[in-house]
Amino acid sequence: MAKTAFTCDYCEGAHPLILQALIDSNMRQEPGYGEDSFCESARARIREVAGCPEADVFFLSGGTQTNATVIDAMLRGYEGVIASQTGHIAVHESGAVEFGGHKVLALPQHDGKINATELESYLQTFYADASCEHMVQPGMVYISFPTEYGTLYSRSELESLRRVCSAFELPLFVDGARLGYGLMSDACDLGLSELADLCDVFYIGGTKVGALCGEAVVFPRGNAPAHFFTTVKQHGALLAKGRLLGIQFDTLFKDGLYFKIARNAIEKAMKVKALFASKGVPMFIDSPTNQQFPVLTGEQLEALSAEVLFEIWETLPDGRCVTRFATSWATTDEQVAVLAKALERM
Amino acid sequence: MAKTAFTCDYCEGAHPLILQALIDSNMRQEPGYGEDSFCESARARIREVAGCPEADVFFLSGGTQTNATVIDAMLRGYEGVIASQTGHIAVHESGAVEFGGHKVLALPQHDGKINATELESYLQTFYADASCEHMVQPGMVYISFPTEYGTLYSRSELESLRRVCSAFELPLFVDGARLGYGLMSDACDLGLSELADLCDVFYIGGTKVGALCGEAVVFPRGNAPAHFFTTVKQHGALLAKGRLLGIQFDTLFKDGLYFKIARNAIEKAMKVKALFASKGVPMFIDSPTNQQFPVLTGEQLEALSAEVLFEIWETLPDGRCVTRFATSWATTDEQVAVLAKALERM
Amino acid sequence: MAKTAFTCDYCEGAHPLILQALIDSNMRQEPGYGEDSFCESARARIREVAGCPEADVFFLSGGTQTNATVIDAMLRGYEGVIASQTGHIAVHESGAVEFGGHKVLALPQHDGKINATELESYLQTFYADASCEHMVQPGMVYISFPTEYGTLYSRSELESLRRVCSAFELPLFVDGARLGYGLMSDACDLGLSELADLCDVFYIGGTKVGALCGEAVVFPRGNAPAHFFTTVKQHGALLAKGRLLGIQFDTLFKDGLYFKIARNAIEKAMKVKALFASKGVPMFIDSPTNQQFPVLTGEQLEALSAEVLFEIWETLPDGRCVTRFATSWATTDEQVAVLAKALERM
Amino acid sequence: MAKTAFTCDYCEGAHPLILQALIDSNMRQEPGYGEDSFCESARARIREVAGCPEADVFFLSGGTQTNATVIDAMLRGYEGVIASQTGHIAVHESGAVEFGGHKVLALPQHDGKINATELESYLQTFYADASCEHMVQPGMVYISFPTEYGTLYSRSELESLRRVCSAFELPLFVDGARLGYGLMSDACDLGLSELADLCDVFYIGGTKVGALCGEAVVFPRGNAPAHFFTTVKQHGALLAKGRLLGIQFDTLFKDGLYFKIARNAIEKAMKVKALFASKGVPMFIDSPTNQQFPVLTGEQLEALSAEVLFEIWETLPDGRCVTRFATSWATTDEQVAVLAKALERM
Repeated sequence: MAKTAFTCDYCEGAHPLILQALIDSNMRQEPGYGEDSFCESARARIREVAGCPEADVFFLSGGTQTNATVIDAMLRGYEGVIASQTGHIAVHESGAVEFGGHKVLALPQHDGKINATELESYLQTFYADASCEHMVQPGMVYISFPTEYGTLYSRSELESLRRVCSAFELPLFVDGARLGYGLMSDACDLGLSELADLCDVFYIGGTKVGALCGEAVVFPRGNAPAHFFTTVKQHGALLAKGRLLGIQFDTLFKDGLYFKIARNAIEKAMKVKALFASKGVPMFIDSPTNQQFPVLTGEQLEALSAEVLFEIWETLPDGRCVTRFATSWATTDEQVAVLAKALERM
Repeated sequence: MAKTAFTCDYCEGAHPLILQALIDSNMRQEPGYGEDSFCESARARIREVAGCPEADVFFLSGGTQTNATVIDAMLRGYEGVIASQTGHIAVHESGAVEFGGHKVLALPQHDGKINATELESYLQTFYADASCEHMVQPGMVYISFPTEYGTLYSRSELESLRRVCSAFELPLFVDGARLGYGLMSDACDLGLSELADLCDVFYIGGTKVGALCGEAVVFPRGNAPAHFFTTVKQHGALLAKGRLLGIQFDTLFKDGLYFKIARNAIEKAMKVKALFASKGVPMFIDSPTNQQFPVLTGEQLEALSAEVLFEIWETLPDGRCVTRFATSWATTDEQVAVLAKALERM
Repeated sequence: MAKTAFTCDYCEGAHPLILQALIDSNMRQEPGYGEDSFCESARARIREVAGCPEADVFFLSGGTQTNATVIDAMLRGYEGVIASQTGHIAVHESGAVEFGGHKVLALPQHDGKINATELESYLQTFYADASCEHMVQPGMVYISFPTEYGTLYSRSELESLRRVCSAFELPLFVDGARLGYGLMSDACDLGLSELADLCDVFYIGGTKVGALCGEAVVFPRGNAPAHFFTTVKQHGALLAKGRLLGIQFDTLFKDGLYFKIARNAIEKAMKVKALFASKGVPMFIDSPTNQQFPVLTGEQLEALSAEVLFEIWETLPDGRCVTRFATSWATTDEQVAVLAKALERM
Repeated sequence: MAKTAFTCDYCEGAHPLILQALIDSNMRQEPGYGEDSFCESARARIREVAGCPEADVFFLSGGTQTNATVIDAMLRGYEGVIASQTGHIAVHESGAVEFGGHKVLALPQHDGKINATELESYLQTFYADASCEHMVQPGMVYISFPTEYGTLYSRSELESLRRVCSAFELPLFVDGARLGYGLMSDACDLGLSELADLCDVFYIGGTKVGALCGEAVVFPRGNAPAHFFTTVKQHGALLAKGRLLGIQFDTLFKDGLYFKIARNAIEKAMKVKALFASKGVPMFIDSPTNQQFPVLTGEQLEALSAEVLFEIWETLPDGRCVTRFATSWATTDEQVAVLAKALERM
C-alpha cells in the first residue's frame, strides 16, 4: 500500500503506548483467560469512566464475534434481534447471528438508524397479530453507535428507544465498534455514562480505535447473563492470553487516551469533509463522525483512485459512486494533505 | 503472580522478536482481514517449511475457535467428528463443536491417543449396523499433536490412522495447539512436512508457542473448503487487523524461530522431569513434551504450592494428586532453579 | 366451531378414501421409517404422475418441517436461502430456517412472488460487491406455488427464474404446501411434470389437500443430498410409522384423487369470489386459487363474523380489513350457501 | 412382510378405536395447531390420569422430535443434557440434540440405566473442577422409562435421581416413548401420578402404544418453558391438523384404553420370555417389559429367521447374537403361537 489509504479505520497497528505497555509487561507471568491483573485494572478503569461501578466487563477480540456472542447469550432460542436493515449484524457478518440460531428482524433505516416510533409500531403490530406465536419473538434491540453510515443517535432518540424497549421488556444493545468516534463527535450530545444508563449492554470498540484487536463488553448494572464466560468460550471468543486485551484496554483508558485519539479521527474527518465540500463534491449522508461518504462521478473516482485509496460503497442509479473515506486515531495531517492535493488535481 | 508459575504455556506475553516486528510495522498501512503483506509473507514461509507449496493457509486467533471453525467447515450437517474421549474438543471447549451442530464421537484414549485398530473397528461396526442411518455419520477424525497429556503419535501410528481414514474417506485433522513442542521433542520421529503429508488439515499453534495469539490453519494440498473465508467470518474468527496474526507468524517462521523457542520448552521440561525423578516423584504419564504430570502426595502438594504455581489435574483414588507442570518458549533456567530449590525443601 | 369455517384449508380431517385405506391396512405388519410397501407404492405413483422416473421421494409430516429440512440439507453452513419477503419461511415458521443456522435472504414481493429480473439484479449486485465474502452466500432460491397470497407463477415466470438460478448455479426449491390448488387452478399454465422439470426439489402438500398430515418431497432427477434420510431424522422429521404417510399419498395418487379433490377447492373458491364480487366487495389481490382475500369494512366484518368464520389478514391504513376465506378439498355447496346467505344479510 | 414380525412395537397401524374416532370426527371443522376440542379433551384426560391438574400438555409427532424440542426448550445455549451412554438421544437420534446446539453428557449405563450415586459423583467432580466454566454446563437429566433395554427404574431409584437433581437444581426429563409398557409391567412399583411428581417433564408415548403417531409432553406443574408453542413450531414439530394427535390421545385416555393395550404387550412379552426360557435360550438382560433380548447362536438365529422376523441388536465376542423380540398393543396369541412353533423347530 504505497498510496495513502482512507479505506478503513484499521489500516495501521496500535497506538504506540499500547505497544509500549505490551513490551513493559511482556515477561510478567499472569493467569490466562481474562483473570490477569491487566484485565482487572482495565475493568476498573472502564467501570469508572462509564460511571457504572457494578458493571460486568468482558474482553473479546472482534466486532462480529462480540455481536454474535452477546446476542446469543441474551436471547432464548425462539427469539430474534431487531436491527436496522443496514445494521452490521444484518449484512456484513456472514450470518453469524443466524449461525447461533437467531433471526435478525430488520427494521427500515433512516440515515442508518431505526426510529422509536417505527419500533413501537412494529412491536404493537407484532403482538396484535393473532399468529404471532408462529413467528420469531422479538428478544432484543440492536443499534450501532455510530451507525454503519457514520451517523449518531441523539440523546433524545436513545431515550425514546429506551422507553419503547422498556415498555416491551426488550434489552437494548449498543454496538460500539466505533464508540469513541461517536462520543467525540461535535454532534454527540451525551457521554459514556449516559449511554451506559440508557442501554442494557454495549461494547467499546478497540480494534478501530487504537488497539490491535479487542472489544470491551459492558453490562452496566452487573447484569451479565449467567455463565457468560462459558458462552464466550463456546463461541471461540475466549483468548488464552487474555492479557493481550487487558493490557490494551488498560492503556486506552488510562489518562483518557481512548477519547484523545478518537478525537483525532474526528478532527481529521472534518477536514476531509471540508475538502470535498470545497470541491463541490456532495456527501451521500451528513456524517459527523470518522466515516465520510463523498459521491463521486466516474472521472472523479478515477482521478482520486490514482492517488489515494478509499472504498467504493455503492453505485447510484445515475452512475455516480458513493465512496467511503475513513479517518482514524492514526490519521495524520500529512495524510490529509495528500488527499487535499489529490482533490486539487481531480 | 509473585511465585514462579508452571501453570501453563501461556503465562507470558510474546517472544521479543514478535514485539519488535509489531513496532517496526506499526504505522504501515495495510489492508484488513488477512490480505496484508505480512500474512502473505507468513503464508509463504509456512508453505515452504511445511513442504506444501499448494497449501491454503489461514490465520485465526485461538484454539477452540480454530477447532470449531475447521470442523464446522469440513463437516456436513449430519456428520460428527471422531476424537479421543480426552480430546480438547470433547471436554474443554464448552461445547463449541456442538454449538455448530455437530456431535463429538468419542473413542477410548490410551495415553491421550486414539489407536488405528480401535478406530477401524469402530467404523466397521458402525457401517455394519443396520440402523447406522439413524446415527450421526462419522465425518472426520480429530487428533491433537501433542495430546492433552503431552504424548505424541509416532510416525507409524499416524500412518496407520491415515490408512484407516483413507479407507473410510474421512479427512484427518491435527490440532497442533502445541505443535512446536511436539515436533521438537526427542521422541518425535517425523517432521512438519511429513505431518502435512499425512493429514488433510492441521494447525500450527502460536498462542502457546511464543505468540500473543494466533493459530495458522493449513490445508496442505490447497484443499480448503469452499468459502472458508466466509465460514471464518461467520464464526467470528476473522480479525479486522489480520496483520496482528500475519506479523507474528511471519516472525515465528523466519530463521526457524518457532522451532528454536519450542526446543527451549522441551529442554526445560526434561530438566523438570529429571528433578522430579531425582526426588522419587512418579509421573502420571511418560510425557516427552512440555507438559509434565507429577503425582504428588498431599504433603508434597502443599509444600510445593507454597513456592511455585502449577495446576491440579485430577485426584487419584488413593488421594494423591496428578499435577501439571508446563514449560514454554519463555521458561528460563532461573525458573527451573526455583523449582529445584522448592523440590529440595519439599 | 358451530359456525361454518373458511378460516383455513385444514379444518377437517382427511378424505374418506384415506381413512378407508388406513382401516384396510391397519393390522398388516410393515417395516418402519418409510420402508413399508405403502410408501414404496406411493413413491412409484408420484414418480409416474410427475414424469420423473428417477426421482427420490421422501415423506415428511408438515410444511415448516419440510422447508427447514430440505433447506438445511441443500445448503452449506455459510449459505442462505433467497425468498420473497412474504414467503412462509420468512415470516410464519418461527425462525425454523435460522434454527438450522441459515439466513433467509428476502427479496421484494409482487403479489407474493419474486421476479426473475430482481433476482438476477440482486445476484449480480451481490457478486459485484467487493465485500461479498463477508456476507451470507446465496445458496438456493425458495418459492411457494401457490404463494401465501394465492397467486401463481406462470410457466414463463418459472422459466425465467430457472434461467437465473442455472446461471448462478443455485438450486430452485418449490414449496407446494398447496400444490394441488395451484395446479388445478384455471390460471395455471403448466402441469406437474413441467414443474418438476423446472426445479431441483419440490414438495407436494398433503396436509392442506386431503391428508391428515404429510408432505411428499421430490428430488426429480434422483438428486437428493447424500444421507438425506439421516438429515430427516436429525430434524425430528422421521415418523416411525412411515406407513401413515405412505398410505395417505398412495391413496391420494391413485386414480387422480389428489387432483380431483384439489379441483373441488378451486370451484368452490371461484364461487366464493363471485359472491363477494356480486356484493361489490373488492379483493385485496386477484387470487386464482383456493385462498380469497376480500377487503371488508368494519361493518361488513362484524356482520359476516356473526355467521361464518374466516381469518383477518391485515388492517389497511383506511381501517378496512383484508380477510382470508379459504376453501379446500372438503368444502361443500352447503357451506358456500351459508356464506351466500350471510353475504346477503351483510 | 409375510412372516410374523417381532421386529418392533410399531409394525401395525393404530388401535381400531382410534381409527373409529378419526372417522367419527372427520368432517367436523376444528381450529388448527392444537387448539381443537379433541386436544382440549385429551389434555383434560391426561391431567386427570396423571394427577396433575395444573399440567401443561402438548402433542408432538414422534420421539426424536419430542426429545430434541423439549431438551432445547429447557436448556440454555451453554448447557448440555446428562443421559445414559445408551440413551436414545445419545445414539439413535442422528444428533438431533447436537443439531440444537447441545452436548449429550453421557454417563455409564447399568442395564440401560444411570444411577444416582454416579450422577451425584459426576456433578460433584464437575463443580469441583477449577476449569468447569470451560466445559458444557450440566443443564438437565434425561432418562428413558422403560430404557432402551426394556428395564425400569424403581420408585426408589427415581427418588434418588430426583434428590440429586434437586440438590443440583437440574430438571429431570423422562422419555416415555414406551411409558405404557413400563407402567403396566409387573415389575413397576409406581404409577403415572407418582412419576409425574418425581420429574419436571415427561412424555407419554403414543406411536409405540397404539397410535399412528404422537407423543404427549407433560409439564406436570404448569411449568412449560415460556413460548414453548413457538419452540415447537421452530422445531417443525407443530402439526397444522393438531386434531390428529388430539383425537388419538383422547381415545387412548378414555376408559383406560392406553393402559389396557399396554398390558397386552406385557402379557405377550412374558409368554415370549417363557418360550425362550423353556428352550434354554438365555436373555442378554432381564427385561420386565415388552422388549426381550434373547441371545442366539448362529444356528438358532438362522433357524428362527426362516420363520419370524426380529432385530439383531449386537454380536457378542463369542459370536452369538443379541436379538430383540418386541411385542406391542397389537400382538396376538396367534403371533405368539407362530413363535412357539418356530422355537420348537429351532
